[in-house]
Amino acid sequence: MKHSCSHVLAAAVLKLYPKAKLAIGPAIEEGFYYDFDFGQEKISEADLEKISSLMIQIIESKQPFKKEQVSATEAKKIFKDQPFKLELIKDLEKEGEKKVFIYHTADFFDLCAGPHVENTGKIGPFKLLSLAGAYWRGSEKNKMLTRIYGTCFPTQKELDEHLKRLEEAKKRDHRVIGKNLDLFVFSDLVGKGLPLFTEKGSIIRRILERYIVDEEIKRGYKHVYTPHLALVKLFQKSGHYPYYKDSMYPVMKIDDEELILRPMTCPHHFELYASRPRSYKELPFRIAELASQFRYEKSGELSGLIRVRAFCLADSHIICTKDQAEDEINKVLDLIEDVASTLGLKKKEDYRYRLSLGDRANDKKYYKDDKSWEVAEAVLRGVIKKRKSPFFEAKDEAAFYGPKIDVQMKNVLGHEETAFTVQYDFVMPKRFNLYYIDKDNSKKEPIVIHRSSIGCIERVIAFLIEKYAGAFPVWLSPVQAIIIPITEKEILYAQKIFQEIKEAGIRVELDDRNETTSAKIRDAELQKVPYMIIVGQKEEKNKSVAVRQRSQGDQGEIKLEKFIGKIQEEIAKKK
Amino acid sequence: MKHSCSHVLAAAVLKLYPKAKLAIGPAIEEGFYYDFDFGQEKISEADLEKISSLMIQIIESKQPFKKEQVSATEAKKIFKDQPFKLELIKDLEKEGEKKVFIYHTADFFDLCAGPHVENTGKIGPFKLLSLAGAYWRGSEKNKMLTRIYGTCFPTQKELDEHLKRLEEAKKRDHRVIGKNLDLFVFSDLVGKGLPLFTEKGSIIRRILERYIVDEEIKRGYKHVYTPHLALVKLFQKSGHYPYYKDSMYPVMKIDDEELILRPMTCPHHFELYASRPRSYKELPFRIAELASQFRYEKSGELSGLIRVRAFCLADSHIICTKDQAEDEINKVLDLIEDVASTLGLKKKEDYRYRLSLGDRANDKKYYKDDKSWEVAEAVLRGVIKKRKSPFFEAKDEAAFYGPKIDVQMKNVLGHEETAFTVQYDFVMPKRFNLYYIDKDNSKKEPIVIHRSSIGCIERVIAFLIEKYAGAFPVWLSPVQAIIIPITEKEILYAQKIFQEIKEAGIRVELDDRNETTSAKIRDAELQKVPYMIIVGQKEEKNKSVAVRQRSQGDQGEIKLEKFIGKIQEEIAKKK
Repeated sequence: MKHSCSHVLAAAVLKLYPKAKLAIGPAIEEGFYYDFDFGQEKISEADLEKISSLMIQIIESKQPFKKEQVSATEAKKIFKDQPFKLELIKDLEKEGEKKVFIYHTADFFDLCAGPHVENTGKIGPFKLLSLAGAYWRGSEKNKMLTRIYGTCFPTQKELDEHLKRLEEAKKRDHRVIGKNLDLFVFSDLVGKGLPLFTEKGSIIRRILERYIVDEEIKRGYKHVYTPHLALVKLFQKSGHYPYYKDSMYPVMKIDDEELILRPMTCPHHFELYASRPRSYKELPFRIAELASQFRYEKSGELSGLIRVRAFCLADSHIICTKDQAEDEINKVLDLIEDVASTLGLKKKEDYRYRLSLGDRANDKKYYKDDKSWEVAEAVLRGVIKKRKSPFFEAKDEAAFYGPKIDVQMKNVLGHEETAFTVQYDFVMPKRFNLYYIDKDNSKKEPIVIHRSSIGCIERVIAFLIEKYAGAFPVWLSPVQAIIIPITEKEILYAQKIFQEIKEAGIRVELDDRNETTSAKIRDAELQKVPYMIIVGQKEEKNKSVAVRQRSQGDQGEIKLEKFIGKIQEEIAKKK
Repeated sequence: MKHSCSHVLAAAVLKLYPKAKLAIGPAIEEGFYYDFDFGQEKISEADLEKISSLMIQIIESKQPFKKEQVSATEAKKIFKDQPFKLELIKDLEKEGEKKVFIYHTADFFDLCAGPHVENTGKIGPFKLLSLAGAYWRGSEKNKMLTRIYGTCFPTQKELDEHLKRLEEAKKRDHRVIGKNLDLFVFSDLVGKGLPLFTEKGSIIRRILERYIVDEEIKRGYKHVYTPHLALVKLFQKSGHYPYYKDSMYPVMKIDDEELILRPMTCPHHFELYASRPRSYKELPFRIAELASQFRYEKSGELSGLIRVRAFCLADSHIICTKDQAEDEINKVLDLIEDVASTLGLKKKEDYRYRLSLGDRANDKKYYKDDKSWEVAEAVLRGVIKKRKSPFFEAKDEAAFYGPKIDVQMKNVLGHEETAFTVQYDFVMPKRFNLYYIDKDNSKKEPIVIHRSSIGCIERVIAFLIEKYAGAFPVWLSPVQAIIIPITEKEILYAQKIFQEIKEAGIRVELDDRNETTSAKIRDAELQKVPYMIIVGQKEEKNKSVAVRQRSQGDQGEIKLEKFIGKIQEEIAKKK
């Protein structure tokens, strides 16, 4: 239905703008879009209403969708005025197709394999949402087209609910909040997809980083630092290069060596493990790192902190015996669930597990070793089942080197995304000749568990910004309290308590601007500061403070020490 | 004298190996070396004695050093069998030299501008130290030569003292200790000059990093995270590229952009400052970062953690008004002195300041703005003088954009090296159009202070390893205490106190190997663990521990809580 609605959109556009050239118009998770080249004509959001009206007419006229098969040669004639369609037909020819499909709706027709609804009348309530620029085929080298986004649902109620969620998501957009709260910026001179964290954003990042490092060390991880780059031959050894080449940065030649920024950390960790012989007593060997990684993403796919070109992953590789695998995976899930809970996420409600399996029939995509696949998949399934965690199985979603458990998190729109992942790898130990000396002095091959705990720091920050709409819990708030003296008379007292609160390890600011108290409170609310500390004559006399809590208003007068104790306790409990 | 001794070395070598080809033989701070191409012949350290004997003969024969000037054409005839000398003569010709100098000692002669001692008899006691491989002109592309290192002194006493220092330095070599204590490793697949920190080395690194970040935040720095790379045009704007190009990594082309790994942090910090208008109220704006930086170093110059190709600098840029400069520089020196003292370094004894000045006559090397140079140099001189700190002035050692104060640290050999630096910059604000809105609403130009506090983390770790010969103070020790149960009977008690000590936040290990107590103590001493906790029947009964301190032996029995309190206090005090 979504795809059918995009045909109707294109039909309406061609009626209104006969010179428009059609690119593609797929259905997407949240609706559909269609990319057009409007040539010299300019269209704006205001024009969407006009297009919508025409679309309603087409829908109400219940035009049937008719499928037709034609030869590629014929198709090229039919689409002779549509250069993008011609390009697509030529590509199909290159792939060996002799015939292509066309769908007709009244006088509109499109190159399309379908399927479609029976007739346009079957399309439910729709809404055109926005305009955006999009390069043809997502590449900067190509022409910039105009993309029209829309969505449709079987019922008006569902459409309304979706629009409400969109509205909410827009308010929570981490790019907007990130700017308003001065958490991160981008620079044209630094480059696309390369965020610069400001002081405030860096506070959140540092707290998250220290939290996860400390938590992992407590659980027996060895936290290390390894270089952000390596020789290309390291990634050739791992098999990532050239397989992974398209998402890696270009090679840098230095003297007679070829270096490259790393897209993942595993090979570095394997080199560290293999730097000396290891005994069975050293296993499980849990290597972890806050690892800088670099991946090429198309510029059209970059989005705030969600998709960047350089990021920091809380990465780990657990090298252990096959017998230890179950216990280790269990411990990883314990860690992930504790971290999720600390970030305010509830199992079932906010996330569930996906058991991502291989496909024995597909040797190209998956390493051929049926027995190891069986063992590994059974281990993962066993762990999830024993935990009685909500999960579902997904065929053909595994990594090349083994099956995995993905933590599927719901985002603001209610869609599931993979937040963290736990992978069982029986391939890399062979590639890197990893071994341990067992009790009987023989060399044995371990397995590797690849895992993340808090994921990519940039993404988790984006996620938290949207989850809390910028109103972070106290322990993560860049500014935890702001002192607001009512008049100039209390400035000295305000400065005194500012020092005391600061020395108690609380991130506090003093608003001594020449503004009214209500203006200061409003600004503090806009900046999402959890506690506003109002001091006037009464408070100074009583050596107390009047506390206002973010979005909850006045909490009354309280002794300063008591307030400090309360906020310290909240921070310690990560509230 | 050192250079004269290198001639004597070459003369002796040519006598013993007539086919040897001479490269260069300069005096260096610690003595001298001479590079030879021995062709098919192999020489070993054992041959140094033979060479030394012949050198003694030459010295005792008091051969005069005779200087001769010849035309370049003639020189090429004289050195026709010495290809490296021919290359040098041709280079001199290219530089426009028509005549060159030759020094003769008996039948030996060398291309050399001198000066030399009067005769070989004036050369004091010498010692040939070692052999090493060295590329001709330091480039991997050229032939590998054999370098013979030596040193000489006016008196035997001075020579002996120097050899003793060398011996001590060798024992403290951070590359050797780093390997023995498993602090860091290198990998042929990762690449040259790219250290991988192991768990233990990473503990030291993390403690230092957190210490400096916390210390700087306490002092009002805004600690940020910015990308490790940027567009080439950012460094073109700063003027670093192409000026600095040779020590930068190669350009990476992505889509239609050119990216490059950053060799310094300043441009990123300027972009962050310039991301929105700044008021005078925001100054001084102290931006700091644990910044990953990347510089190309010739492979022959890489050395352990001292000289690497990717490093982490505790970097900062203070953007302030000219009036604030003196106060800010003072505060930076306060920070540097506190950090140095925490690391166990004493002013005067271990370091002094160098005031590095520009040269008004050299417009190529230094930005032309005489008045700004005068002001900046006066500010720096004033600060040091007021502090009554030991310092000296050095002409022609400034940065391109202004003068600086270098903290000159003595290394194990007693040589001074620049550890940290504070630079006054009046050029970059113009280049980046940095400004602030002053009280009167006018745009004004700030100045920038570039500074480091703890320097490059890799280097400071190398320095600390050598300073403490691996026996780190308790707060920095990767393992702070090790529990050694005397017999198997105390294993349970040992496990119990292991938990208690660990929960008290102390890095503790339990040595439950099947070895004798003395063997375990020996191993713990070798691993430089500050505290060994021996537990036997008596200790178990008394709920106590017997403490042995590293290199100081038995400290007697003590209650467990008391021991924990003591070690916690040491850690808190950074002892």
